[in-house]
Amino acid sequence: MRYSRLFGKTLKTISRDIVMKSHKLLTRAGFISESTAGRYFFLPLGMRVHDKIMKVIEEEMDRAGAQKMITPVLHPLELWKETNRTKTTGFELMKVKDRRGADFALGGTAEEMFVDVVRKNGVSYKDLPMNLYQFSTKFRDELRARGGLLRVREFTMKDAYSFHVDEEDFKKEYKNMWDTYSRIFKRLGLDTVVVESDNGYIGGEYCHEFVVISDAGESRFLMTEDGSYAAHEDVAKFKKVGMNIDEKEEEMVEVEAKRGPKMEDGVELHKKPLWQQIKDVLFVDEHGRFILAIIRGDLDVNETKLKHVVDVVDLRHASDDEIRDVVHSEPGFISPVGIKDLICKDKKIVVIADDSMRTVKNFYGGANKKNKDLFNVNIDRDFKPDLEGDIAMAEKGYLSPEGKKLVDKKGIEVGNIFQLGLHYSSRMKDAVFTDKDGKEKQFYMGCYGIGLGRTMATIVEMMSDEKGIIWPEIVAPYKVHLVRLGDSGDLKTKAEEVYEKLKSCNVEVLYDDREDVSAGEKFADADLIGVPIRIVVSKKSLLAGGAEVKKRGEEKIGIVEISRIEKVLGL
Amino acid sequence: MRYSRLFGKTLKTISRDIVMKSHKLLTRAGFISESTAGRYFFLPLGMRVHDKIMKVIEEEMDRAGAQKMITPVLHPLELWKETNRTKTTGFELMKVKDRRGADFALGGTAEEMFVDVVRKNGVSYKDLPMNLYQFSTKFRDELRARGGLLRVREFTMKDAYSFHVDEEDFKKEYKNMWDTYSRIFKRLGLDTVVVESDNGYIGGEYCHEFVVISDAGESRFLMTEDGSYAAHEDVAKFKKVGMNIDEKEEEMVEVEAKRGPKMEDGVELHKKPLWQQIKDVLFVDEHGRFILAIIRGDLDVNETKLKHVVDVVDLRHASDDEIRDVVHSEPGFISPVGIKDLICKDKKIVVIADDSMRTVKNFYGGANKKNKDLFNVNIDRDFKPDLEGDIAMAEKGYLSPEGKKLVDKKGIEVGNIFQLGLHYSSRMKDAVFTDKDGKEKQFYMGCYGIGLGRTMATIVEMMSDEKGIIWPEIVAPYKVHLVRLGDSGDLKTKAEEVYEKLKSCNVEVLYDDREDVSAGEKFADADLIGVPIRIVVSKKSLLAGGAEVKKRGEEKIGIVEISRIEKVLGL
Repeated sequence: MRYSRLFGKTLKTISRDIVMKSHKLLTRAGFISESTAGRYFFLPLGMRVHDKIMKVIEEEMDRAGAQKMITPVLHPLELWKETNRTKTTGFELMKVKDRRGADFALGGTAEEMFVDVVRKNGVSYKDLPMNLYQFSTKFRDELRARGGLLRVREFTMKDAYSFHVDEEDFKKEYKNMWDTYSRIFKRLGLDTVVVESDNGYIGGEYCHEFVVISDAGESRFLMTEDGSYAAHEDVAKFKKVGMNIDEKEEEMVEVEAKRGPKMEDGVELHKKPLWQQIKDVLFVDEHGRFILAIIRGDLDVNETKLKHVVDVVDLRHASDDEIRDVVHSEPGFISPVGIKDLICKDKKIVVIADDSMRTVKNFYGGANKKNKDLFNVNIDRDFKPDLEGDIAMAEKGYLSPEGKKLVDKKGIEVGNIFQLGLHYSSRMKDAVFTDKDGKEKQFYMGCYGIGLGRTMATIVEMMSDEKGIIWPEIVAPYKVHLVRLGDSGDLKTKAEEVYEKLKSCNVEVLYDDREDVSAGEKFADADLIGVPIRIVVSKKSLLAGGAEVKKRGEEKIGIVEISRIEKVLGL
Repeated sequence: MRYSRLFGKTLKTISRDIVMKSHKLLTRAGFISESTAGRYFFLPLGMRVHDKIMKVIEEEMDRAGAQKMITPVLHPLELWKETNRTKTTGFELMKVKDRRGADFALGGTAEEMFVDVVRKNGVSYKDLPMNLYQFSTKFRDELRARGGLLRVREFTMKDAYSFHVDEEDFKKEYKNMWDTYSRIFKRLGLDTVVVESDNGYIGGEYCHEFVVISDAGESRFLMTEDGSYAAHEDVAKFKKVGMNIDEKEEEMVEVEAKRGPKMEDGVELHKKPLWQQIKDVLFVDEHGRFILAIIRGDLDVNETKLKHVVDVVDLRHASDDEIRDVVHSEPGFISPVGIKDLICKDKKIVVIADDSMRTVKNFYGGANKKNKDLFNVNIDRDFKPDLEGDIAMAEKGYLSPEGKKLVDKKGIEVGNIFQLGLHYSSRMKDAVFTDKDGKEKQFYMGCYGIGLGRTMATIVEMMSDEKGIIWPEIVAPYKVHLVRLGDSGDLKTKAEEVYEKLKSCNVEVLYDDREDVSAGEKFADADLIGVPIRIVVSKKSLLAGGAEVKKRGEEKIGIVEISRIEKVLGL
């Protein structure tokens, strides 16, 4: 490609609103151009990178035995109603009505569509397992787009959906996809950490994110230094060590407690440790039920974990008025002890105890009355929670479940894999296969996604220097950036010779043939665009016996005879 | 690929609503599956064909010097407002609002988007010409979908847009694209006729359809037997031969005419030829103006041509009441003579004469009064049209502009190329390049489209027999369909050997490894799916010394040693 004819040249100035490194570099170098916020044109250079990323993913998905197909972008809204996802998706679903009044969703993910096409085509146990994937445009009506390709409203996603006779068979595919994703990102030059994460709007029981550690990312997670454990902050588990667990349970007593509503006020008044205090957090769920979460005083409630344990979609904090007038307790003095007898008859309260409540004896805390506290509160004896589980937020410095110190990290989520189990097949009619015994059974499912644009941006976040992008060869828009310095006839002839020779050897070459452009500008553009090998044809190089060859990101310059130019590229 | 594991197997029964050949075959053979009317899943077999068609198009577009990129699917509606296409598109535009209230169109074609990205990136004459293309999902809110992939509501389109300094440069690219399209369809095994056609909602002055002659098509066109002229019925020109052109112009007279309103009524009453009668057709345009089209009595008005001559978007026939009460004429007796003096003062009438009005002297026809006719009406002398031009409908049997007999044909439009001229650049702000003299000039443009799904369906319409599809090798989902007959261990070993051998030679092979399926069913499936080469491994073939090899569409069966199997494929 002649650079003079390329659409999408380097830009000298870009909008001040562009702050992320990958956004800046991809825009300045002419790979992408904004249409409206969160929607991008991929210019010819960007398209080439996008296509190459797609090719790597396709090769690895095929190698893993997955089958490529495609679904329409407009999904019949009835399908999303079958699974009740019209309301519960984490992204705002975009909807459109056609001229006949039919309702459609603009595909955000495609679980329902794939279940639909599989159930329409009637499969039996003999067809399973199968893993179907597509590359298709996805829409997310994000409130805020940010960071160029890192968080957009429209993007190409590789999404795959696997169908199995049972969990055992699914687990093999989950491993297969785990390995496939590891290979994909490795080939793309990205080091990924596999992080346990929350399944969010997708459903199912467990899932993992493939995360590239970077401050540009939005994924916060905790991991051990050796990487043996990594989990998103929403789901990270940690060791809750016993504190005074050998102490004898003392008699519960009510004491005067003229104090403020904060945890520290209790600590100061009673001169007892924070961890011995009960932390009570009162929420209201989408059904109007009160949810009282109780946890050891030195820990925090993790709302994502809490939602899973209680199995609700939405939680909000109860107001002071609700605490007083409906629950008949007192802000800052809530206690699980006796609270079920206090609340208005027509209201429900569910008490959930974090399992840290079993690491301490003789808790102290509020008494559901102003300026009264209880000492020596013990679980089972003084109150019985409706539910118990892990609802605690992990923090750096805590111990992993195996007892290693956790550190916190930020990263970019480039891919994820989900167990779906029977989540979709149990909600959608006829989502069944015929088993060996002739009976119909629901599929066991998984799904697997990679965002292509975000992967591209992540490569740039990780591989650049102060001059520009440094593309790994596998996704570089071209292999060689040929630069001609000077416009004399002889130079042109020599440069054209190199250009034609490389093309005839099937080397992808970008040829900067612009006239009246300075050497400095051409070199700066080459560095900015970031093609792996730069070849310069100039008066100086010809005098030295040929063309200058230099790798992007290295300083060493070699001279190669033009007649042997293709050999030094190791073709 | 093992057929046992393929998703999308052949179907024994399909819906009775499926009537078109390509729709039937693609559905029965497992290439496509309907989502909702006009929206299809491409199953793995169909996806492979779709990808191969895409590859051919991409190769030829790249060879032609076009640059691949991609635009978002959601187009900001403001862009469509700039060109006033929100109302004038031939397809109903689908619109969607995001959560922030921004309006978008679901891309139907992308002229505005490409102009937008080019103007945003500031180009000069040095960057031109350039031809930018994409493969992207397009949406058409068709009232009726029909014929499977032939007319759909959502499909992948290759759309290209070229930008030029002037018309002369554009014409070179138009020729380049014409040749490129011819090559593309030839490589895909399709014979195309290039047909002049109407530019419809795209704008511009001329365009051509690439049409495959077939009764399955919706494009009606006229052509000479030798193919020297071909044009869509909407735009076809023909020779309008002089009739009594040497006659002297007689004095115009008004005569009694107790007759019905039809053309034949005048012929019968006056015993004069139909061609000598004036045909008057009164329309109302979108501005409320009356448009009187007059034409020689033996010809019909072509509304598409009329709209172009008058430069209006919408025409409807005037009602009898409007003819009487507003125009003050009489249904069946309308005449251009004096009509401008009759119409209500606050209304406008525009008289358009077909150029056939100059092929006859001494016309007869109505007198704008009931039961009165005029004889010896002559253009210029008795009335002066506001506009003159070709507004006549061509019919089979007429003569082409060069004087050859026209025949009528039906066909499938698989591609089209459009001159856009300054249509978009003159309507959109800043749609300019910097010329040599430093001044800003509007781009001269063209655009070029191919629908991939329709192309796929057309291949099936043209290449099949009573047993199924006969794919041309270049787009066949696989090159070899390997069929194993019998499930004995020895047969399995031999068949697997062939399968592995072919795969190791990079031959795409579909292996029917199903157990307990009869030979008849396997052969029928192979014929239905239509892979070019069938290789059978059976007891019989092994006894005969190897595997049976047969080409789809031919009867001859050969026996080839398994050890030499890849050689006979000419690999």
